[in-house]
Amino acid sequence: MPDLLVVGSVALDSVATPFGAVREALGGSATFFSYAASFFTGVRLLATVGEDFPREHLDLLRGRGVDIASLQVSKGRTFRWAGEYGYDLNEAKTLDTQLNVFADFKPVLAPELRRIPYLFLANIDPALQLDVLHQMDERPRLVALDTMNFWIRGKREALGRVLAEVDVVTINDGEARELAGEPNLVRATRAIAAMGPKTVVVKRGEYGALMFSDGAFFMVPAYPLDSVFDPTGAGDSFAGGFVGYLAATDRVDAPAMRQALVYGSVIASFAVEDFSLNRLIRLTRQEIDERYDAFGDLTRLEASPR
Amino acid sequence: MPDLLVVGSVALDSVATPFGAVREALGGSATFFSYAASFFTGVRLLATVGEDFPREHLDLLRGRGVDIASLQVSKGRTFRWAGEYGYDLNEAKTLDTQLNVFADFKPVLAPELRRIPYLFLANIDPALQLDVLHQMDERPRLVALDTMNFWIRGKREALGRVLAEVDVVTINDGEARELAGEPNLVRATRAIAAMGPKTVVVKRGEYGALMFSDGAFFMVPAYPLDSVFDPTGAGDSFAGGFVGYLAATDRVDAPAMRQALVYGSVIASFAVEDFSLNRLIRLTRQEIDERYDAFGDLTRLEASPR
Repeated sequence: MPDLLVVGSVALDSVATPFGAVREALGGSATFFSYAASFFTGVRLLATVGEDFPREHLDLLRGRGVDIASLQVSKGRTFRWAGEYGYDLNEAKTLDTQLNVFADFKPVLAPELRRIPYLFLANIDPALQLDVLHQMDERPRLVALDTMNFWIRGKREALGRVLAEVDVVTINDGEARELAGEPNLVRATRAIAAMGPKTVVVKRGEYGALMFSDGAFFMVPAYPLDSVFDPTGAGDSFAGGFVGYLAATDRVDAPAMRQALVYGSVIASFAVEDFSLNRLIRLTRQEIDERYDAFGDLTRLEASPR
Repeated sequence: MPDLLVVGSVALDSVATPFGAVREALGGSATFFSYAASFFTGVRLLATVGEDFPREHLDLLRGRGVDIASLQVSKGRTFRWAGEYGYDLNEAKTLDTQLNVFADFKPVLAPELRRIPYLFLANIDPALQLDVLHQMDERPRLVALDTMNFWIRGKREALGRVLAEVDVVTINDGEARELAGEPNLVRATRAIAAMGPKTVVVKRGEYGALMFSDGAFFMVPAYPLDSVFDPTGAGDSFAGGFVGYLAATDRVDAPAMRQALVYGSVIASFAVEDFSLNRLIRLTRQEIDERYDAFGDLTRLEASPR
C-alpha cells in the first residue's frame, strides 16, 4: 500500500510571467504535490477532474507511479485557473478562476485509503479537509495541511477546527501574518503553533522557508537561482518533497523534519525553473541529492575558533 | 596600533517607528560600525562632528576602546538625520537631512593611519572613499566598503572606480539590483563581483544576508526576533561585526569570511532590538558568542541518510 495520500485539486493553469506563458497546462495543488512526492515514496491522489481532462496528463502521473485510482472523472469541465506574475514573482495576480467540477468536490475515501499513515490535505475548503481527516479509520502518523488567505478570510472557524487536529501546517509568510493577526513573523509562527500544529512551516518564496517545530526554529534559504521562470506550484512541490521524504523514511523526529524541509526546498527550487511540471518531468533523483548537498554547502559554518 | 580603520559619518538621528521614537540620538555609519567592531578588535574612527556634539557620546565611544583621535570637531553643527519607519521596517522614510559639517568632510589620514591592515569605507561619497584608499601608504590586507542608492544614482562613475579597488562591498538587496541593473539577485550579485570586489555581501533586512565570495554563495538567515524596534544602523553594525571579526582573527580565507558574516548578523540582530546604540551598549561578548551558536543551530542540518 502506498505510504502517502494527498487530497486536493487538479487543474489546468494558464500562466503568464515576464519570461513566457503557457495555456491550460497541467496544474493544481494535488498534482504538484503528488508529482514531487513521487520522487520519494508511493502517493495516492484523491481529486476530481472533468471529462475534458487530457489523457496525456493521466499518463504522466501514472508514469511517475502516482496512484490515480481515486482521481474521479466528473461530468463537466476541469478546474481552470489563469494568473500572471510581474517581475516580482512573489505574488500572482489571478485573472480568472473557473471551479467547474471542483466546485462540487466532496472527497470520499475508499476503504483502502483510510489507514494510510501520511496524509496531506492540500489547499481546499478547511471543512472538507476536516471531513477527510475524520474519514480515516486510524489517526495517520502525520497529517499536514496547506491553506491560503481565501480560507483564512472566509472560513476561519472551520480552519481553526482542522488546524487543531493536524501535525504540520504549511503557509505563506503573508498568510501566516494574516492568520495570526500579527505582523512579526516569529510571533505569528508561534501563535499558529498554539492553534494546534506542532510544526509550522512558513514559505517565503525567494527568501526560503522557516520551520517552527517543537519549540525551535530552523531556517532554509532559497537556492540561489539565476532564473525563476514560474513560481506556480512551488509551494505544493515544496510540500510534496517535505511530506514525501518523511513518508519515505517513516520518521517524524526533529533531524528528519529538518532534512525534509531541505528536500522540500530542493524540489521547489527545481519546480520554478520552468512552467507547469516541465522541470520536474526532466528531474532525476541524482539531481535532487546533489542539490540537497548544495543546500548544505550554502549554510555550512564552522564553529567559531574562540 | 589598532587593526581597523573606519571612515564615515557620525550623526544625531531622530527616528520614529511604530514602537517609539528618539530625538537626536547618537547615530551615523561610522558610529555603529566602530561600536560594533569594538567587541572584536581595536578601531580607529575618522569622521567629523560639529561643536554641538555632546561630550557624553565621545565618552561612550572612548569607553568601548574606540580610538577617536581622528574624530575631528569642526566649526558648525553635527550632521542630523530624521526618519521614520512603518510596520514594514525594511524601508526608512527620510524626513530630514541636515549635512552641516559633514557636507565639507574631506578625510585626511594622519600618518599613523596609513598602514592599518583593515579598512572600512562607510557610506560616504565614493570619490572620498577612493581618496582615502589612495592615502594609504600600504595596500590594506582587506578593504570593505558600503554604499547606497544615492551614490549609485548620482556618482556611478566614481563608485565604479572605487569598487574596482576594494575586496568587499556590503549593499542592500534593492541597491544591489539597482547597481547591477538586474532584477535577479543572484545575477546582480555576480555582476557586482565582476565590477571588482571578490566578496559581495548583500543585506536583506528581515531576510538575513547572502555572500558571494570566490565564486560560492553563503546564506545567513536573520535571527528570529520577537521584536524589532529600530533597524537604523543595522547595516553598519553588521559591517562592524563582519570586518571587526576578520581584523581580530587576521584571516580572510573562506571559512573565516563565513564566520564573519554570522558575527555581522549577530551584532545586527542585537542592534535592532532597541533605538540608537542602546542595545549594543548593554551587550556582552558572552551574549554575542551565545547568539553565534544559536545561528549555527538555526541552519544545522545532518547529511541525508541516503
